[in-house]
Amino acid sequence: MADSAANQAPPPAESPAEAPAVGDGEQGGISKKAAKKAEAKAKKEAEKARRAAERAAAAAASSSAAQTEDLAKDNYGQETAETKLSPDAIEVSLKNLGEEHVGKTIELRAWLQNARMQGAKMAFVELREEGNWSIQGLAVANQEGTPVSRQMVKWIGAINPESFVVVEAKVQKPFEPIKSCTVTNYELHITKCYIHAAAPTVLGMTLAAANRPVANFSDEEAPVDQEVEKLNINSTGDTTGIPAATMLTHLDNIVMHKRSAVQQAIADIRAEMKDLYRSYLRSQGFKEFEPPCLIAAASEGGANVFRLPYFEKAAFLAQSPQFYKQIEIAGGRKRVFSVGPVFRAENSNTPRHMTEFTGLDMEMEIKKDYREVVYMLEGVLLHMFRQIKERCPNEIALVRSVYPAEEFLLPEPGKEVRLTFAEGQKLLREEGPEEFRNVSDDEDMSTPQEKALGAIIRKKFHTDFYVLDKFPEGARPFYAKEDPANRKVTNAYDLFMRGQEICSGGQRINDPVELEARIRTKGIDPASPGIKEYVDIFKQAGVPAHGGGGIGLDRVVAWYLNLPSVHLAAFFPRTPKRLLP
Amino acid sequence: MADSAANQAPPPAESPAEAPAVGDGEQGGISKKAAKKAEAKAKKEAEKARRAAERAAAAAASSSAAQTEDLAKDNYGQETAETKLSPDAIEVSLKNLGEEHVGKTIELRAWLQNARMQGAKMAFVELREEGNWSIQGLAVANQEGTPVSRQMVKWIGAINPESFVVVEAKVQKPFEPIKSCTVTNYELHITKCYIHAAAPTVLGMTLAAANRPVANFSDEEAPVDQEVEKLNINSTGDTTGIPAATMLTHLDNIVMHKRSAVQQAIADIRAEMKDLYRSYLRSQGFKEFEPPCLIAAASEGGANVFRLPYFEKAAFLAQSPQFYKQIEIAGGRKRVFSVGPVFRAENSNTPRHMTEFTGLDMEMEIKKDYREVVYMLEGVLLHMFRQIKERCPNEIALVRSVYPAEEFLLPEPGKEVRLTFAEGQKLLREEGPEEFRNVSDDEDMSTPQEKALGAIIRKKFHTDFYVLDKFPEGARPFYAKEDPANRKVTNAYDLFMRGQEICSGGQRINDPVELEARIRTKGIDPASPGIKEYVDIFKQAGVPAHGGGGIGLDRVVAWYLNLPSVHLAAFFPRTPKRLLP
Repeated sequence: MADSAANQAPPPAESPAEAPAVGDGEQGGISKKAAKKAEAKAKKEAEKARRAAERAAAAAASSSAAQTEDLAKDNYGQETAETKLSPDAIEVSLKNLGEEHVGKTIELRAWLQNARMQGAKMAFVELREEGNWSIQGLAVANQEGTPVSRQMVKWIGAINPESFVVVEAKVQKPFEPIKSCTVTNYELHITKCYIHAAAPTVLGMTLAAANRPVANFSDEEAPVDQEVEKLNINSTGDTTGIPAATMLTHLDNIVMHKRSAVQQAIADIRAEMKDLYRSYLRSQGFKEFEPPCLIAAASEGGANVFRLPYFEKAAFLAQSPQFYKQIEIAGGRKRVFSVGPVFRAENSNTPRHMTEFTGLDMEMEIKKDYREVVYMLEGVLLHMFRQIKERCPNEIALVRSVYPAEEFLLPEPGKEVRLTFAEGQKLLREEGPEEFRNVSDDEDMSTPQEKALGAIIRKKFHTDFYVLDKFPEGARPFYAKEDPANRKVTNAYDLFMRGQEICSGGQRINDPVELEARIRTKGIDPASPGIKEYVDIFKQAGVPAHGGGGIGLDRVVAWYLNLPSVHLAAFFPRTPKRLLP
Repeated sequence: MADSAANQAPPPAESPAEAPAVGDGEQGGISKKAAKKAEAKAKKEAEKARRAAERAAAAAASSSAAQTEDLAKDNYGQETAETKLSPDAIEVSLKNLGEEHVGKTIELRAWLQNARMQGAKMAFVELREEGNWSIQGLAVANQEGTPVSRQMVKWIGAINPESFVVVEAKVQKPFEPIKSCTVTNYELHITKCYIHAAAPTVLGMTLAAANRPVANFSDEEAPVDQEVEKLNINSTGDTTGIPAATMLTHLDNIVMHKRSAVQQAIADIRAEMKDLYRSYLRSQGFKEFEPPCLIAAASEGGANVFRLPYFEKAAFLAQSPQFYKQIEIAGGRKRVFSVGPVFRAENSNTPRHMTEFTGLDMEMEIKKDYREVVYMLEGVLLHMFRQIKERCPNEIALVRSVYPAEEFLLPEPGKEVRLTFAEGQKLLREEGPEEFRNVSDDEDMSTPQEKALGAIIRKKFHTDFYVLDKFPEGARPFYAKEDPANRKVTNAYDLFMRGQEICSGGQRINDPVELEARIRTKGIDPASPGIKEYVDIFKQAGVPAHGGGGIGLDRVVAWYLNLPSVHLAAFFPRTPKRLLP
């Protein structure tokens, strides 16, 4: 385990890690940015040199130490079945560490995220637990009352970062607060230390790099001459000197990607968003159900649908649980929701698209007015946005420290922004950029138009969250209910975050005669596969008026935090070019 | 809407409904059972005749009534945009109906599940809301103070069952409790009634038939000469005279299938089971995540895996989220869980199999002993079993009224049954049926052996839930950790309900060197697709010891209730022959 001096060296050539970004891609340093970058790089090199020296010293000390007898030899090494800690060592997690533990011996199972020697008799380590909790540990040789040898100290100082270790230590107050760790008021005086699972000598991506903003989200391996551009993305305001890695490098090193504080925080926020969605809808009388992924027909024309051989027939992967939500309503439920994967075989290589994502869907009976559904969708999202700040304030702050973002503005209660599509287009014509002066009320909005409208609404109404209602008839599918008072528009809506759609929904036609007529108007044969089964549902028995919506969880998380890509919000992002890991 | 007299007639020939089961398949009625059946049939025929007469009378009355002026004509008919109820009508759901509503006018939106005339001046209806809440309504013509005409009464009496209606009515106490409805203490005196969505004249499956036990779970259309057998299955102890339908009929009439009280109750139990699983694990520090469905390689040899074209490559549908749970642990999580679909391309047409089902998965770091995982899995399941009785007592009772079952026996706290595989085999040898006298400790158990062991354990330990641990090495996959003290067995376990496996899990090998050696021992190339990516995870950084398990939600629900098929527990069962609806 003494071979870890290479820890901070660039990864070997076969590993597509951050190595290229450390390279010499910095010709023509004329801007302030470049100067800053150069300075940062110098700092980094100095730090690297310092560490190398430290490790060389440790290695030297280690080999000389090996010649003397080691009285502490049972107190460190690889963990085995025989490894025993003191029976009075208390198990305590770092987040629960308090004054009552000072002077006590504790047991900790944690990741060692850093180890270094200070002289030949002292080693410092940083130990980390889930939730970005870290604490400083130190091992001092030949102290009175502690069974720590010089050999043991050297051994600890040379443990590969990101090894998982078992530590026995006494909790002490440090002379001054430890700024490099999240536990600042306590430190651990190590008496025993074992490696439970060793990390490799060279990590494919260091934790520090993993915690930097991702440099590039391209699905393709970036050729070397794009490295300058990558560094530019990376170096915005950055003085850490730690190179950022591409998304491909992050995915190739998924373990380190996930261990980063920023990804842990995003994962926590995502899990809580999901829980808030469910608990709110449950409190409103919604019943959960599971729609199928495997379906017999591609209901919306078959574009962008994955098809697979299914025994002697074919199957498709559901693009949306809508049909099944409606069956639940037809089948006697007043309100239903589902949380699950949906699939799009869309060859879009953008930071906004994935081929598999998590849908938060809901459908409900309408009593008097389809706006009951709009308000429910608005209500659940506002609940999620308001509560996430209560549940995850530290996680949000942590993400913002890596991916800076303006606060996500919410409307004051009672001042929710609900515009009709026509009102939105009017705003764009009157207050939007030149190129949108002639947008029409009958045509769907483009993504740039949506973003421009988002900017206008933020300025005018001070909110990043709003509803656009009454979409034009031509912009909506056959099942969208027309507004009885104005058949040019539908009772269908989108919900937006920062000018980007995160939810689409509407009232559905529940009368089979009206539905078949509408299907014909849209140029579709009501007897075609997938369509026929859909219409038949409304013929089986009387189905009340209903509506719903589908929310993209990945987008909600990504846009709430203003992440540069939805891929950062997903646990295992799926793109047309990538299914690994 | 006067054409509903045909409501109780058999469905037309093109509908694969229960019609055949009503047919004359009753030759050779020599048994008691057959006699009972004949009696039941006679009863049913009498009831049918009585209703037909009633409806004929209603129709006649209706045509004569049409000749006089209708003073109530605005108080009934098809609901339109102009339909108005009294502004002082209270919206109240049936489950909240109480003494304070007596004498008040309420508004109800509900399914009409039954309508009949009593003479020419009175119509009775049964109105139903979600959750199996039903109430009797009546309309009486020419009563003082109520704007109800003879024409209106006739019209109400002829509404097709399973239409969705809007009703305005005064709440009254009935002369005696209404036994046919779940609300027994109140009835509704209808003053207005509109059809919001009409059901067809003839339902593909009546609500009564939908609420009977499913007669046959075959995936194939049953030929006519099997009808006798179907009736036998159906008629066990049944005196309702209502024919049972096959599962195919249920699926072809999914709306009525879902409206049945028994399916509503099963769906409620399932949703609560899922919620109990999540909330318990969250309370134990587990973090939720979403594993992908689309994966790049079939990790377990490729058998029974769905394969699909994925842009220019191939993708597979995940059989289990295990790999991804382990990545989460490697990626810094202590405890994770997921709830989502898993897929098996297995051509098994049995009541225990589906090609898509819902997995409740979990994975956790092991501190000292892999039994921490066993106890956690046992703990979450016991929590689900104990709490579901608190949350859904009525739903469980309702399901049992249709599918009678012995109580699901739980161990007393502290008396959980945990046997080793070898102890289980010993029990089978010593106390099992003759054919299992020679079972070996080194070979996996067959399904009949599992069931026999379940019966022995129930008798001996009075529990239907237990753990079988330390499965033989040969019965477990390459990633299962061997017991260091006895390498012939693994630290892997199954959990059982009523002698059937509902959860499989174990400690995983977390050391890449040990893992590769084990993979080779199993005759697999560690560099093969899917395997290599798996091993690489443990090479990226040090991964602590961990283990987990996967629970089949569909089976948990089905076996808890002792349903005859897991298909009844699923919202949309997927079988090799069936993807619809």
